Amino acid sequence: MDVVVEPGIGWMELNEYLAPYGLFFPLDPGPGATIGGMCGTRCSGSLAVRYGTMRDNVINLKAVLADGEVVKTASRARKSAAGYDLTRLMIGSEGTLGVITEVTLRLQKIPEHSIVAMCNFPTIKDAADVAIAAMLSGIQVSRVELLDEVQVKAINLANGKDLPEFPTLMFELIGTEAYTREQTHIVQKIASEHNGSDFVFAEDKEAKKELWKIRKEALYACLAMAPNCEAMTTDVCVPLSHLAELISKSKQELDASPLLCTVIAHAGDGNFHTVILFNPEDEGQRKEAERLNNFMVHAALSMEGTCTGEHGVGTGKLKYLEKELGTANLRTMRKIKAALDPNGIMNPGKLIPPHVCL
Amino acid sequence: MDVVVEPGIGWMELNEYLAPYGLFFPLDPGPGATIGGMCGTRCSGSLAVRYGTMRDNVINLKAVLADGEVVKTASRARKSAAGYDLTRLMIGSEGTLGVITEVTLRLQKIPEHSIVAMCNFPTIKDAADVAIAAMLSGIQVSRVELLDEVQVKAINLANGKDLPEFPTLMFELIGTEAYTREQTHIVQKIASEHNGSDFVFAEDKEAKKELWKIRKEALYACLAMAPNCEAMTTDVCVPLSHLAELISKSKQELDASPLLCTVIAHAGDGNFHTVILFNPEDEGQRKEAERLNNFMVHAALSMEGTCTGEHGVGTGKLKYLEKELGTANLRTMRKIKAALDPNGIMNPGKLIPPHVCL
Ligand SMILES: Cc1cc2nc3c(=O)[nH]c(=O)nc-3n(C[C@H](O)[C@H](O)[C@H](O)COP(=O)(O)OP(=O)(O)OC[C@H]3O[C@@H](n4cnc5c(N)ncnc54)[C@H](O)[C@@H]3O)c2cc1C
Ligand SMILES: Cc1cc2nc3c(=O)[nH]c(=O)nc-3n(C[C@H](O)[C@H](O)[C@H](O)COP(=O)(O)OP(=O)(O)OC[C@H]3O[C@@H](n4cnc5c(N)ncnc54)[C@H](O)[C@@H]3O)c2cc1C
Repeated sequence: MDVVVEPGIGWMELNEYLAPYGLFFPLDPGPGATIGGMCGTRCSGSLAVRYGTMRDNVINLKAVLADGEVVKTASRARKSAAGYDLTRLMIGSEGTLGVITEVTLRLQKIPEHSIVAMCNFPTIKDAADVAIAAMLSGIQVSRVELLDEVQVKAINLANGKDLPEFPTLMFELIGTEAYTREQTHIVQKIASEHNGSDFVFAEDKEAKKELWKIRKEALYACLAMAPNCEAMTTDVCVPLSHLAELISKSKQELDASPLLCTVIAHAGDGNFHTVILFNPEDEGQRKEAERLNNFMVHAALSMEGTCTGEHGVGTGKLKYLEKELGTANLRTMRKIKAALDPNGIMNPGKLIPPHVCL
Repeated sequence: MDVVVEPGIGWMELNEYLAPYGLFFPLDPGPGATIGGMCGTRCSGSLAVRYGTMRDNVINLKAVLADGEVVKTASRARKSAAGYDLTRLMIGSEGTLGVITEVTLRLQKIPEHSIVAMCNFPTIKDAADVAIAAMLSGIQVSRVELLDEVQVKAINLANGKDLPEFPTLMFELIGTEAYTREQTHIVQKIASEHNGSDFVFAEDKEAKKELWKIRKEALYACLAMAPNCEAMTTDVCVPLSHLAELISKSKQELDASPLLCTVIAHAGDGNFHTVILFNPEDEGQRKEAERLNNFMVHAALSMEGTCTGEHGVGTGKLKYLEKELGTANLRTMRKIKAALDPNGIMNPGKLIPPHVCL
C-alpha cells in the first residue's frame, strides 16, 4: 500500500494509474498539482479531514541538498522512531532546503461505497455550525466542504446547474453501503437541528464525480463570472471552535466590499478560503483585495490560527510569520536554513522573512 | 478537540481527566509514559494503526532550546503550511534539540461502540497473513495485536486466564453499533479463510477493558514467568507486505534459542516486538539476547524496515542507523544538531552516532 514516484507526476495522473489496483492517493489540491510541489507546500485539500495532509501521507523522500548530498529521509516502514524527522522537515520547506527527487507515498483503499450529501442553510454561520457539530459527533466524514451563496451562483452559471443559491454544505461519507447510509442519516439529523433544508444525496457514480469536479473547479467558475478579473485566493485556518466566528466576521466584511467575493471552506479542518475577484489594472481594486486578505489573516491570527492552511508562504505571507510564530521560531528556522544551505542557493528569498538573522 | 498540557502528565492520567468530556488522547505506550517522553521517542502503541503516532497527534509544542530561546513551534490550527515543521523536528528528537515544556494535543471522540474480536491460528504466519489481509480489506480496525503462543501462556499464568495457547490475533473494531458488528463479520470471514479458529468477541465494557489491560501488561506477564530474568524488548518495523516473512523468520530463530522469548506485534503497522528473557548475571545469556535482537534488526533492514518502530534510538541502536539511513542522512542530522545545540549540552551522546561529523 505504498508507491515510489518522481516529483513531476501529478496526483490526478497517479490516481489514474492506481485505480485498477483499487488504491488511491488521498490528496486533492489544484487539478495540475504535482507530487513535488505538493511536498513543497505541505498541501492538503478536501480529503484532508479524513486522511490528513501531505505531512501525513509521505513515508520517505529523497532530496538533493545544497552541497550536492543525496539524502534519503527514512526507511519504507510506515512508522519509525529512528532519528530526526527529515521527511517532515522537507515537507512544507518550499524548495528552500533541497530539491526533492523521489517520494514514497502511502496509499489508501478506494472506499467500497460513498455518498455525497448536500444541504442548504439560511446563513453561513448555520452551515459552519453544522460542519463543526458533524466533526464533534464522531462520524467518519471524508469531506465537509462549505460554499457560500455567491460561490454556488458562480458554479451554477459556469456549469449550467440550478443548485439552490444558499450557503451550502457538501459532505462525503464513506465505508460499507450500510455504514454510509447510517452516517448520512446522522448528518441529516444534525443539519435539520441547525435550520438545514433541501437535504439531498447522491449515490450514482457519475453524479458524485460531477459534483466533486465542479467543486474542485470552483475557482474557474469564479473567473468565468468576472472575465476581466484576477482571483486572489485567501487561505487561513483556525481551530475548529473558532471557524463559525471567523467565517461570519469575514463574510460581513466581504459583503460590504465593492469586490465580488466567494467563500469555499474545507470546513472539517477549520480551513477557510475566499476567492476575491479584482481587476488587475485597477490599483484601487488590488488594494481592496489586499485589505480583505489582510483583514482575514489578522482575524485568524487573533483566533490562534495560521495565515496559511495549505497554500504556503512564498513571499506574499512573509509579513505575517512573526506575528503567527514569534521571533524565536523564525530564528530557529533561519538556523536550520543556514546549516543546510549556507550560501542561500535553494529558492532564495522564500519562506523566511529577510530581517530574521542568525 | 485539543488540550494543552505540561510534559510531565501521563497519558493515562490525561485520559482519566478527559473521559467525562467524551474525549481521549489516542496514544497508548507503556503504562507510566508521560507526554514529554512520548514526544521524545515519537512513540505510538496499539491504536496507531487507526490514529497514527505521536507525530500525527501533536498540534504544536513549546520547547526551550540550548541557547535559552523559548520556541512555540506552530499555531493552534489543525493544519498549516506556514514554515518549517519544527513540531515534527522536535518529536522523536529524544531531548537532543531542546526541552519540551508544553504540548497541544489533538483529541478524539471516544467511539460510540467497540468490539474486541479474538481468533487463534495454527501458525504465526497465518495470524500475520490475516492482519495484513484485514488492513488490505479497507475495514476500519482500531487495533490489530498479534501474540504468539508463548506470550499467551505468560498472560494465562500471570492473570489466571485460560486463553487457548496458540498464535492469536486481537482486533478492535469501532464505530456505531451496527458498523462494528458488520466489520466483525468481515474480520471473521477473513480469519476463517486463513485457518482461523475459536473466533470470539467481547462487547461487554469490563471484559474489553480487562483484555486490553492484560495485553498492555504483557511485558510484566513475561517477567512473572521468569522471576530472575531481565527482559530485552525488540522493536523492528517493516512494510506491511514483509511482516509475515519477518515474523516467520524471527520465530524460527527464537524457537531455536535456549532463551525464553515471546512475540507481540502491532501487526497493522508492521511493528513487531519480541520479549527476550535472560539472566542478567549470565554473560552468555546476555550475548544470546543481543544476538537475537541483532538478527531481527538486520532482517528488518534487509526488508526496507527500521531498527526502531516506536522505542527510539538512545545509545543502543546508534550502530544500526548508518545502515538504515545512510551517511548523508546522518550528516544532515548532525548539521541540525550543531546548528541548534552547538555545545552539545542537550542529552549528549544520544541519537546521532559519534563518528558522524560535520
Ligand atoms: C483550482 C485550484 C484548487 C486548489 N485547491 C487546493 C487545495 O484544495 N488544497 C491545497 O493545498 N492547495 C490547493 N491549490 C493550490 C495548489 O494546488 C497547491 O499549492 C499545490 O501543492 C501546488 O503544486 P504545484 O505542483 O503546482 O507546485 P508549485 O506551485 O510548482 O510549487 C510549490 C512549491 O513547492 C516547491 N517545489 C516544487 N517542486 C519541488 C521539488 N521537486 N523539490 C522541492 N521543492 C519543490 C516550489 O519551489 C514551491 O515553493 C489549488 C490550486 C488551484 C489552482
Ligand atoms: C509495558 C510497556 C509497554 C510499552 N508499550 C509501548 C508501545 O506500545 N508503544 C511505544 O511506543 N512504546 C511503548 N513502551 C515504551 C515507552 O512507554 C515509550 O518509549 C514512552 O514514549 C516513554 O515515555 P517516558 O515518559 O517513560 O519517557 P522517558 O523514557 O523518560 O524519555 C524518553 C525520551 O524522551 C526524552 N524526553 C523526556 N521528556 C522530555 C521533554 N520534556 N523534552 C524533551 N525530551 C524529553 C528523553 O530524553 C528520552 O530521550 C512500552 C513500555 C513498557 C514498559
